[in-house]
Amino acid sequence: MTDFLLDPRLAADSAFIADGPLSQVRLMDDTRFPWLLLVPRVTGASEWLELDGAQQRLLLAEVNRAGNLVRALPGVEKLNIGALGNIVRQLHVHLVGRHAGDAAWPGPVWGSGTAQRHAPEALATQVEFWRSRLQ
Amino acid sequence: MTDFLLDPRLAADSAFIADGPLSQVRLMDDTRFPWLLLVPRVTGASEWLELDGAQQRLLLAEVNRAGNLVRALPGVEKLNIGALGNIVRQLHVHLVGRHAGDAAWPGPVWGSGTAQRHAPEALATQVEFWRSRLQ
Repeated sequence: MTDFLLDPRLAADSAFIADGPLSQVRLMDDTRFPWLLLVPRVTGASEWLELDGAQQRLLLAEVNRAGNLVRALPGVEKLNIGALGNIVRQLHVHLVGRHAGDAAWPGPVWGSGTAQRHAPEALATQVEFWRSRLQ
Repeated sequence: MTDFLLDPRLAADSAFIADGPLSQVRLMDDTRFPWLLLVPRVTGASEWLELDGAQQRLLLAEVNRAGNLVRALPGVEKLNIGALGNIVRQLHVHLVGRHAGDAAWPGPVWGSGTAQRHAPEALATQVEFWRSRLQ
């Protein structure tokens, strides 16, 4: 896994938080939603189902850990979990905290409107917030 | 789990195929996409993360089994896996076979256009197709 390379579109749209047992945990740079990405460090994987059993269990544990943190945020009413990959084929799992009236409610966040980027300082603060909870 | 009740909106939009170890497997009644639903027979569950560890592993095994069948269909290029529940809170996992140029490509299927219902005979044929593969 030493030759793991992050897709440049994922790199551009999100910020590194921490490395979990299997995956990079990243923050989507969009102030509209609390939105984490899990990107397994498995070269060439594009489907969850391509992971072997041990990797799938690691990913599920990471979904539980990070997803429960998203669910615990004030105001979050529903967790959306998605693995789509229609545009970026590198396997990545979305964990998005949703609430009635948010910018895409009740539709999915993917393809909905335009990302509202954080200011640089706010992004750094958010990354630090998540890093302190995940490490 | 004897008091399991299917949400009436899921019942109206999909057809029963089979019971897996944890979940009802259902076919979404939309000719635009090969689209299965897994609905765990766990009363009151709305989040994957509310399931206990054993239930989560059963659900993951069902995702693998049904998802691999969707992936194996001719023309399917990408599997979309989603657990959203913004509209119907009863826990359900979507498994959708996608290809470039399909009715929602490259966006998500959820909230995209209007379902194209099967004719009754075609729906019965589809259900039988899936039942023979899943049982």
